[in-house]
Parts: sequence; structure tokens; C-alpha cells
Amino acid sequence: MTQADDDHRAPDHAKRPEVMADIYSEDGSIRSDFLAMVGASIADRDVLFLRENVARLHESELGDLLESIMPEQRHAMVRLLGSDFDMTALTEVDEAIRLDIVEQMPNDQIAAGIGEMDSDDAVYILEDMDREDREDILAQMPFTERVLLLRALDYPESSAGRRMQTEFVAVPPFWTVGQTIDYMREEEELPESFSQIFVIDPTFKLVGALDLDRLLRSKRQVKIETIMHETNHPIAAEMDQEEAAQLFEQYDLLSAAVVDDNGRLVGVLTIDDVVDVMQEEAEEDLLRLGGVGDEELSDSIAVTSRSRVPWLAVNLITAFMAASVIGLFDATIEQIVALAVLMPIVAGMGGNAGSQTMTVSVRALATKNLDIHNAARIIRREAGVGLLNGALFGCAIGIIAGLWFQDVNLGGIIATAMMINMFAAAIAGIIIPLLLDKYGADPAVSSAVFVTAVTDIVGFFSFLGLATWWFGVPI
Amino acid sequence: MTQADDDHRAPDHAKRPEVMADIYSEDGSIRSDFLAMVGASIADRDVLFLRENVARLHESELGDLLESIMPEQRHAMVRLLGSDFDMTALTEVDEAIRLDIVEQMPNDQIAAGIGEMDSDDAVYILEDMDREDREDILAQMPFTERVLLLRALDYPESSAGRRMQTEFVAVPPFWTVGQTIDYMREEEELPESFSQIFVIDPTFKLVGALDLDRLLRSKRQVKIETIMHETNHPIAAEMDQEEAAQLFEQYDLLSAAVVDDNGRLVGVLTIDDVVDVMQEEAEEDLLRLGGVGDEELSDSIAVTSRSRVPWLAVNLITAFMAASVIGLFDATIEQIVALAVLMPIVAGMGGNAGSQTMTVSVRALATKNLDIHNAARIIRREAGVGLLNGALFGCAIGIIAGLWFQDVNLGGIIATAMMINMFAAAIAGIIIPLLLDKYGADPAVSSAVFVTAVTDIVGFFSFLGLATWWFGVPI
Repeated sequence: MTQADDDHRAPDHAKRPEVMADIYSEDGSIRSDFLAMVGASIADRDVLFLRENVARLHESELGDLLESIMPEQRHAMVRLLGSDFDMTALTEVDEAIRLDIVEQMPNDQIAAGIGEMDSDDAVYILEDMDREDREDILAQMPFTERVLLLRALDYPESSAGRRMQTEFVAVPPFWTVGQTIDYMREEEELPESFSQIFVIDPTFKLVGALDLDRLLRSKRQVKIETIMHETNHPIAAEMDQEEAAQLFEQYDLLSAAVVDDNGRLVGVLTIDDVVDVMQEEAEEDLLRLGGVGDEELSDSIAVTSRSRVPWLAVNLITAFMAASVIGLFDATIEQIVALAVLMPIVAGMGGNAGSQTMTVSVRALATKNLDIHNAARIIRREAGVGLLNGALFGCAIGIIAGLWFQDVNLGGIIATAMMINMFAAAIAGIIIPLLLDKYGADPAVSSAVFVTAVTDIVGFFSFLGLATWWFGVPI
Repeated sequence: MTQADDDHRAPDHAKRPEVMADIYSEDGSIRSDFLAMVGASIADRDVLFLRENVARLHESELGDLLESIMPEQRHAMVRLLGSDFDMTALTEVDEAIRLDIVEQMPNDQIAAGIGEMDSDDAVYILEDMDREDREDILAQMPFTERVLLLRALDYPESSAGRRMQTEFVAVPPFWTVGQTIDYMREEEELPESFSQIFVIDPTFKLVGALDLDRLLRSKRQVKIETIMHETNHPIAAEMDQEEAAQLFEQYDLLSAAVVDDNGRLVGVLTIDDVVDVMQEEAEEDLLRLGGVGDEELSDSIAVTSRSRVPWLAVNLITAFMAASVIGLFDATIEQIVALAVLMPIVAGMGGNAGSQTMTVSVRALATKNLDIHNAARIIRREAGVGLLNGALFGCAIGIIAGLWFQDVNLGGIIATAMMINMFAAAIAGIIIPLLLDKYGADPAVSSAVFVTAVTDIVGFFSFLGLATWWFGVPI
């Protein structure tokens, strides 16, 4: 999880045979010859090879390896490695793979592995387990570790308390720099790696923080309280991890104190966990915009299929609504079949323009760049873009359609309908996400459905309606 | 940019009047009363108020403030603050706003401001300026700083060399911990903040790195070379920033050495810059999937409109291709208008299913979770999902359409067409991004156009073709 881990592994890395110096190929996937050698050694139960070449991988490399081999190979490899299997690698794999591996491992192996992990990684593994297994594993851990893990697990899911590390360095404000450095030289039970130390009063209340570089620049006799800074951004253990991540991003923090309701220091949140949270959030937004829920690549066909049904079902309803708009004008279409040929162009181009505006709006809302101070300006801008591009593409489509069907009237009608629909698309693309956000819904989830519904319905209605009115066909 | 910055500001923060303790309202936008007070003090030329309440904001808060006020207010505020204006805030605002402010500032004010910034922030401002202004500003800077900035600017755009900080702490391997700490206590010219020191030989070649916590835990007489670790991940100055960000993410780095072609240490890349790169990349992928280029909220109507035209133009072509498929069957539609009413449902549902698969595939490619080792499995899975959801929604749509038009045959035809199109959508949704990626194109940019073209054409062709064949209408 940390650079310090990396240090410990560095000498091992050096010992890895030359051919394995980099397990990745050019395109970022694991090299096929490495996979073949690992596969063969699993089949041969070659524990020595695995210990020398797999046990020494960085946790994220081991995670990638686990994701690249077959499920049976995974189980066999974990069994063969035994206590040499670095369980931290499980924090780097898909949830489905993690659960599958953990289920196959005996509880005492898990307890031993978790005992060696940072508390935040341990919680990450424990939180997804069965209650029964979890209690069995915790019962096998030393008292202090058990208490700390239980406290972290008590905080709500996705809270800072769940993601924090309970190992940290804290000193009283009246200590000197010299005392603090001596303490760090003597103390055996320090966290594996840290970039900040915290200053607490006798009741464990947080009074300040001190970056290590500041400590190193100060003379031995200087008192800690004179060089520490007040922590402007202590994070409440109950705070949602996404909110905590935003504080890290805004103030460029490397680590931050996590405090309980009474302002007592209970842990530290570090940037590496926050980076993972940011990536998860970005991924969630992107998938939701594409009409996909929280699915993972390792999910089965049935699970994936089920997770995608809701959005398709909503679209089924809006598609029939659009179809019934077309149904209103069936008499017109019967007489002028060209309308049926051209109408998907009006709806489709509107849909694309709408999804452009919507993508920008949803992203701006997520990054808090779109708010009440600039909403009016952005709406005006999008309306302007809609009018401009509507005029441009309306004329282009009008000319092409007019030439295709040798009918000036048809060209004029589709051009007008196109302009109306591009304008509607722009307005819907910004107003719908804003309204969803205002009323507490996630704009990424449902904007697309509504925007498409608007552009389909407005597209069909304006095009077929204008044609019916112009050509005088009775509805 | 760093926690240390934050420290220096901490006492100022405390002095801010209570009403200003937090300039943000609940929803994350800047409080209206604060904006009003700032606006009034700009109008009144109340420099004292601005110095006490605006100059003391954190750079990211000042950036948010600049984005929330009118352009004329921005210029007036920067003028009124003079040398109290923290130019680092310009790294936190939209490009259009940054350029606008920089253009209005006299070059000597910029030179003075840049002299106080970390080199990575200075480069960030300088790289977007006119050549002439940039040279004028650089000419006003001290020799050493100028050389370092020029070297950073010489590296390609979006490279690690552009994003690196040229201030770092480096010591020879034979120094002891004590010597190193004494050096840091005496030396005045240290970087504002750092979490790692580097170990170099007399020719400035990088030999290792040392985390500060490791240094603090070691006794004074210990030699640096015995506790340093080899840097497994030195970053070439020419490396693309995105690739560097992936190394940070994979190995949970806080900072990393940047080296030139000869392995000489030229700078340090820090996690806070890398977080910005990650956010930019995630944003880019999302916008591209939505058919939007690199646009910003502050862009004008003309700029925005122009940036969205290419995708709409490509869609125009594919829309006419789909329309010409419909045109093949105009005789059938003339006889059975219900086909015109129903056909957008087949195309639309296919489009949605395709965009679900495509979103997952594009994201998995971006995070390198989809590669040659699992591509076959994922393609099989998506095909399975397509068949399953195709059967489900095909039957549902068949029943509804059959009841609506009181025609069993029509229900059977649309159900079959739906299944064909959902299967085609699944295959196109995964194969198209994979092919684009294989041939070096960015799958996020162009997948959507091709996938929609496939689902439109297959949807119309299968539905209208089946109907023509079944009902025996001559094409």
C-alpha cells in the first residue's frame, strides 16, 4: 500500500531472474511467457518457483496476475503459496474474484494474513465477508488489533472510518523535535510508512499535525507545538469517502487525521486510498451515463444481464411513447413514405446533440463546476450552441433530403424540424440534469433516458406534424 | 500545492472573521453573501478588505472565487491585490479564464508572481502563453530559475518533464543520517514541502531514494546508502504524464524521481499533480464517449459549437446510411404503415444495449482490465448477455406490438428482429472498441458512432427485411 512496502521488496525484485524483470508486455497486459511459466509451475506444484517469482511480486502485480489466470489456477496458487501469499493483493482485484478466493481460503490462513496487513486493507477484505466467517477470523486475532478492526467496521459503509488506517504516530505538543525523533528511533510499533505525525492532548483530542519535512528542518530543542499546524481539514469518521476525497483534491493533502464525534484522533486517511476512491467515482459516473450499473468484468452472464435490464426497460417505455407519436401520423406516412425514411435522421441527430450537452452538464455537476452562479450563463450558451448547430445541420440535411427526393418542400420541412429538435436537445440536455440534481437524484443515472425521450418525441412530432400541416393530410 | 503551503496559511485562516470561516455553502458553491461582499469591495476599491479576506484564501478557494465572479471583477480584483494576488490560483481555474487573466496582467507582475511559485506551477502558467510574452517574463527571472524553467518547457507537452517540480533534496550515498538531518536544518533553499529525498552520485545520476519516515527512524551514524531503496520506478522526463500516472496508481507512490536520458535526476513528480492528471484523463474519456472534445465550461458559443460539429457530421453520414436502408423497403412500408411506427423501437433498443456494452468495454480498455488474456471470455459474456436480453425484450416487444396492431405475425417479426439486433449490438459494442484500440485509435472517441451505425442499420434491415419476406411484398 505504501512506498515503504516497496522498499522492503526492492532487494527481492533485484533477485528476480532477468527474464522476469518486467512481467508486463508493451500493451500493459501480463506477458504470455510469464503466465505460461506460472501455469506450468502451478500444474507441477512447483512451490519453489512460485515462492521465488510470484510471492515477490508487488501486491498490484500479484493482483493483475490473479485476474489473468483461471479460477482453478487461482485457488491452487493460493494454496501452494500458503503463508507466502500476500493477501494485500486481494485489495487489487475485482470483487467477484476476491470473494471467490477468500471463500476457498481456510479462516486461520485469512486471520494470519490479515494480521500482517495495514488495518485499512484488512477492513477492505473483512467488510465483504459473511458475518460468521468474519467473527471467526476476528476471534483469532490479538486483542488490540481486534478492537481497532471492530471499531473501523462499526463505521458506515463507504465512510472515512472504513477507509482509514488505524496505525499512526501521535505525540504530545510539549515534546521537542529531539524527543520526537528519539521516540521514532526507539519505537518498534510504528506504521509501515507515514508522511505526517499528529499532535494530541492527554485525552487523545487532536490538536495539530506536523509534516515530516518540517520536523526534519527544525532544531532538536524546538517544541512541537511551535512548528505544528492546526489541521484545517480534520475528517469526521462518519464522513462519506467521496466528500473526504474532494477535500484531499481541493487542498492537495497527502494524509489527513480522522476524528470521532468528540474530536479524538482515531485514524489517518492517506492519499493512496483516496486515489482509489476518486477512480471508483469517475468509473461510476461513466458507467451510469452509459446506462450500466455497478458491474464488474468478472460478473457472470446472468448477473450482468440482470443489472442491465432496468435501463433497457425504461427505454422500452419511452420507445413506445415515441412510436405512438409516429402512430398519430400514420395517414401522412401512408401517402408520403419518404417521411418514414427521413424521420430517424431528425430523431437521431437530436439525440446526439442532446447527449453532447448532457455529458458536459453531468460532468460539470459532478465536479461542482456547474452551480447556481453560472447555471444561467451555461443554459444560454447551450441554447446558443443548439441554435447554431441546428441551423447548420438543418440546412445541410434539408439540402441533401431535398435533392434525394427531388422535393423542395420536404427539404424545408426537415430543415425546420431539425432546428427545432436541436434546440430542444440543447435545452433538455442541460435542464434535465440540473433538475435531477436539484431534486436529489443522480443526474448520471437517469439523464440519458429522459433526454433521448425528449429528442425522439420532439423529433418525430415536429417533423411529421409539420409535414401533415404543410401537405394538408388529415390526421 | 502542498501541505506545507497549507501550514503557512493556517494562522491567517484563524484570523478570518467568523462569518468567513467557510466560504462554501452546503451545496459546494461559494456562499452568495461572500460573493456579494467581495463584489462590493471590488467596486469600492477596498484593498484592505480584499487583502484580509481574499489574499488569504487557499489557492483552490481563490480559484473557485475567480470562476464565480464576472470577467471585469476578476481583472479589477487582480489589479487591486497586486503582489498579494497568489498566482498559484491560476492553476485551479479553467484555461479560458486563466488566459484571460494572464493577458490582462503586466509582464513584470507575472514574473514576480512566477518567481514565488513551485516550478511545476510556473511551467503550467508559462506553457500556454504567447512566445513573446513568455520570453519577456523569463528574461526578468534570476538565472538559475530561468534555466530550470526553460529546461522543463523544452520537454514535450503533457510529459512528465513538464509536470515535474525542479526543486528537490538530493544527497550523496556516503552521507550519514546525522549529516543529512543537519544539512536540512541549515540549508535555506529547500523545497516548500517534500516527502522523499533522493540519493545521487557526483554526476547527478540517480542511485536511490529514501522516504522521510525511514530517515527519521534511523540512528544518526547510519549511512544513507544502507537505508535507501533503489528506485524501481524512475520516470523518464519524456514519458507521457498519463503513463506516469498509471505507475503512481499501480505502485501507490507519493513522489517519484524524474530522470533525463542519461539517468540524471532532473526533478520530482508528486502525487498532487498526478491526481490532477488522473482527473483530467477520466474527464476526457467521459466527454469523448459523449461525443464532446476538450471543451471547457468557459468556452464561448462559437468555440463550443465548432468543437461539437465533427461528431455530429459523422453522425449525419451514418444517419443517411441508415435512412437509405429504410429506403430499400419503401414499398413494404407503403402497404404496412405499422412498420414505420415500430421500426425506431428496434433500432433504439439496439442502440441502448450497444452503448451499455460499449461503455463497459471502453472503460475496461482505459483501465487496462480488458486485454488479450480475457478478451475472448468477455466477448462470450457479452454475446450471452445480448442473447439473453434480446430474448427477454424481443418477447416483451413482440407481445406489446402484436396486441397494439392486433397482428400475431407482426409481433413475431419484431420479436425476431429485436433478438437479432440486440445480439448484433452486443458484438459491435465489444468488437468495435477492441479493434479501434488494437489499431491505435482511441476507443472512447469513435466507438459510439460506429456502434450506433451498426445497431441502426441492422435494426432497420432485419425488421423491414423480415417483414418484406414474410408478407411477400416485392422490394
